[in-house]
Amino acid sequence: MDSPPLTDTDRVLADLRALRAFGRDRTGVSRPAYSAADMEARRWLAARMREIGLAVSIDGVGNVIGRDPDASRAVLLGSHTDSVPSGGWLDGALGIAYALQTARAWRAAATGVGRLGIDVVSFADEEGAFLGCLGSRAFCGELSDRDMEAVRPGGVRLREALAEAGLTGAPLRGLDPARHLAYVEAHIEQGPRLEAAAVDIGVVEAIVGLRRQRIHFAGRADHAGTTPMAMRADAAAALFALAGELGAAFARVATPTSVWNTGVVRVAPGAANVVPVEAELVLEYRDVSDAQLDRMTETARALVAAAEGRGDVAVTMEDVGGLCPAAMDPRLVARIEKAAAARGASTMRLASGAGHDAMILAPHVPTAMLFVPSIGGRSHDVSEDTAEADIRRGAEVYAAAVMDILAGGIP
Amino acid sequence: MDSPPLTDTDRVLADLRALRAFGRDRTGVSRPAYSAADMEARRWLAARMREIGLAVSIDGVGNVIGRDPDASRAVLLGSHTDSVPSGGWLDGALGIAYALQTARAWRAAATGVGRLGIDVVSFADEEGAFLGCLGSRAFCGELSDRDMEAVRPGGVRLREALAEAGLTGAPLRGLDPARHLAYVEAHIEQGPRLEAAAVDIGVVEAIVGLRRQRIHFAGRADHAGTTPMAMRADAAAALFALAGELGAAFARVATPTSVWNTGVVRVAPGAANVVPVEAELVLEYRDVSDAQLDRMTETARALVAAAEGRGDVAVTMEDVGGLCPAAMDPRLVARIEKAAAARGASTMRLASGAGHDAMILAPHVPTAMLFVPSIGGRSHDVSEDTAEADIRRGAEVYAAAVMDILAGGIP
Repeated sequence: MDSPPLTDTDRVLADLRALRAFGRDRTGVSRPAYSAADMEARRWLAARMREIGLAVSIDGVGNVIGRDPDASRAVLLGSHTDSVPSGGWLDGALGIAYALQTARAWRAAATGVGRLGIDVVSFADEEGAFLGCLGSRAFCGELSDRDMEAVRPGGVRLREALAEAGLTGAPLRGLDPARHLAYVEAHIEQGPRLEAAAVDIGVVEAIVGLRRQRIHFAGRADHAGTTPMAMRADAAAALFALAGELGAAFARVATPTSVWNTGVVRVAPGAANVVPVEAELVLEYRDVSDAQLDRMTETARALVAAAEGRGDVAVTMEDVGGLCPAAMDPRLVARIEKAAAARGASTMRLASGAGHDAMILAPHVPTAMLFVPSIGGRSHDVSEDTAEADIRRGAEVYAAAVMDILAGGIP
Repeated sequence: MDSPPLTDTDRVLADLRALRAFGRDRTGVSRPAYSAADMEARRWLAARMREIGLAVSIDGVGNVIGRDPDASRAVLLGSHTDSVPSGGWLDGALGIAYALQTARAWRAAATGVGRLGIDVVSFADEEGAFLGCLGSRAFCGELSDRDMEAVRPGGVRLREALAEAGLTGAPLRGLDPARHLAYVEAHIEQGPRLEAAAVDIGVVEAIVGLRRQRIHFAGRADHAGTTPMAMRADAAAALFALAGELGAAFARVATPTSVWNTGVVRVAPGAANVVPVEAELVLEYRDVSDAQLDRMTETARALVAAAEGRGDVAVTMEDVGGLCPAAMDPRLVARIEKAAAARGASTMRLASGAGHDAMILAPHVPTAMLFVPSIGGRSHDVSEDTAEADIRRGAEVYAAAVMDILAGGIP
């Protein structure tokens, strides 16, 4: 392995702390896409990119793109700087600070025109104030006219938010297949696995796909004192039974990366003395394999059909969303593991259970992700944090992996 | 059996239709306690009682009490004229119309002073706008000072509502053990059993008691994508499991009068991609036997303790209400059956799964109830109805039973 320029992890921490000032919320930040705090953070980032000699633009959806003007081909590094409301200070920001410092070091060390370079991107609205991964979707040419009609809960339209953020008329910038040879993103794990295993670095093999189904139960409202049990059509009882069956059946067909959740439960009319007339369950499940997602969908369908056939409660299921799994590039995965090993950092391959911009990039360009541990697995909360030593170690491994990719040919 | 005065069932229907005009709501009524419509209906009833020669008062909680001035001892007949919001036209009103017509016929036929008579009462707030069976509780001396501090959902205080209804300063009237020899109440069934069995008259043997427990599940909110299944403390999954176990265990220990319901279900934070941190279930169950209610309480407690011991979700249970079962007087039950048989009406003994004023009266005076069928078992809805032939038949059986009680000695 070539000897990379020393990573100045003090600069990484300084950049992270500077970013935290925009939309600061106790120990975290509130920087929803296109808020004043989000746009200030983007302008701050653009200024930092200019300082290190990148050609910077903020495009029509707010992506901040810094292009190495002396490079003919480049590795693209990035993540996002928007946050959920009352989110953590590292979610997205960590990957940006790593990318910025790695580009800074490369620009300081590399010479010549027509060489390989580093471009840096901060994607807009990864967190989905309007649409999850909006910026990276636009960057990959996957944003439809219909997507542009998105409306935020509360009624603000995307086009209005873009206008208010001063982005109207700015051109969209896109991935350049002739220029961009790889995309590498660092992120906090947002889960407990690295901490639980006492491992330094997570090397992402794939980002899980997800599917969501809404299951609806239509029963009959009856007086809960006067109606014999055998004469009821109890929507809640049907929901409890199906939810129990789903849990047991999913546990049987699960792969090591399968997870599922029933986070939305509604029962109406919601009175202690009225037999529930209506109930609703939103089922979400994730896996790295589309075939496994198909298997889980079939499992759910069969149980819904059996429930529907069982009694007086009508049970129906409809799709309400989904994302395809995204595989990371195995050659890039190996480079990250090699860089970690060279620095004595322990690694663990894992699937990302959360979505990331890398999931959007992966079908278009060789893509890789690196995780650092999250304390207690906390995320999407101001309590989110990562030990300083883990932040520094991740920065070194990330920089070393990128330098190795640049030095070793891509990929 | 003495030959009773012919019951004028046309008058019963006319009175029911007149009552329906107060607070009319489509095919039903909205007459919550102390509303303008409720008070108008009470004044209308007081006027009808005066017409037949009763001495009438509206007491300090709104009970309308008509006293036969020529009787030294009396059978008390009654029910209630308040309704749930958008309730049915017969819930309560039926028993009042039967009582009024029976008293009317008795006053027209009976002669002499010091004889047995009929008193009529319409209790206030049976439906619990402020407190279920408020009027009959007050009548039986069971209303505490704390009960008088009741506040309706929305923030109106009982004392304010009474003042606005013009009842401040009116004395409370009570059951007079030296005078009142029995209480007989007719009511719609509010359930489907009579209709399903094609039976004309339900003879109530007991009114079920009920208990309510709130079961709380405290888990941990985690990202539903990044947290492995084995590392979750899923409050909703714990709720589904316990609800399923409760249903199965209650089915095993159930008596023919046991019913139960889980009508209140809450899951927080209620997002598809967040593992539920908190869940709540309100369990309600009823039976005619206190020993059986104890058995069901123990069953629930044991399952909650087992759930609490099972995993990371803290499961706790607290009592949030209860009512004791009330037995009807077996001698009065026999009189109702005899009166029905004499008119060729079929009967069925049953337990009332709903609460009634009779439940409050029963510990204080020999008490009986008679049910007429509810079409489709519907109740607490404007669609509530009873076939006209069933209303007429019920009025005849009720009048005949009361006349038999008066003629035959009490009880």
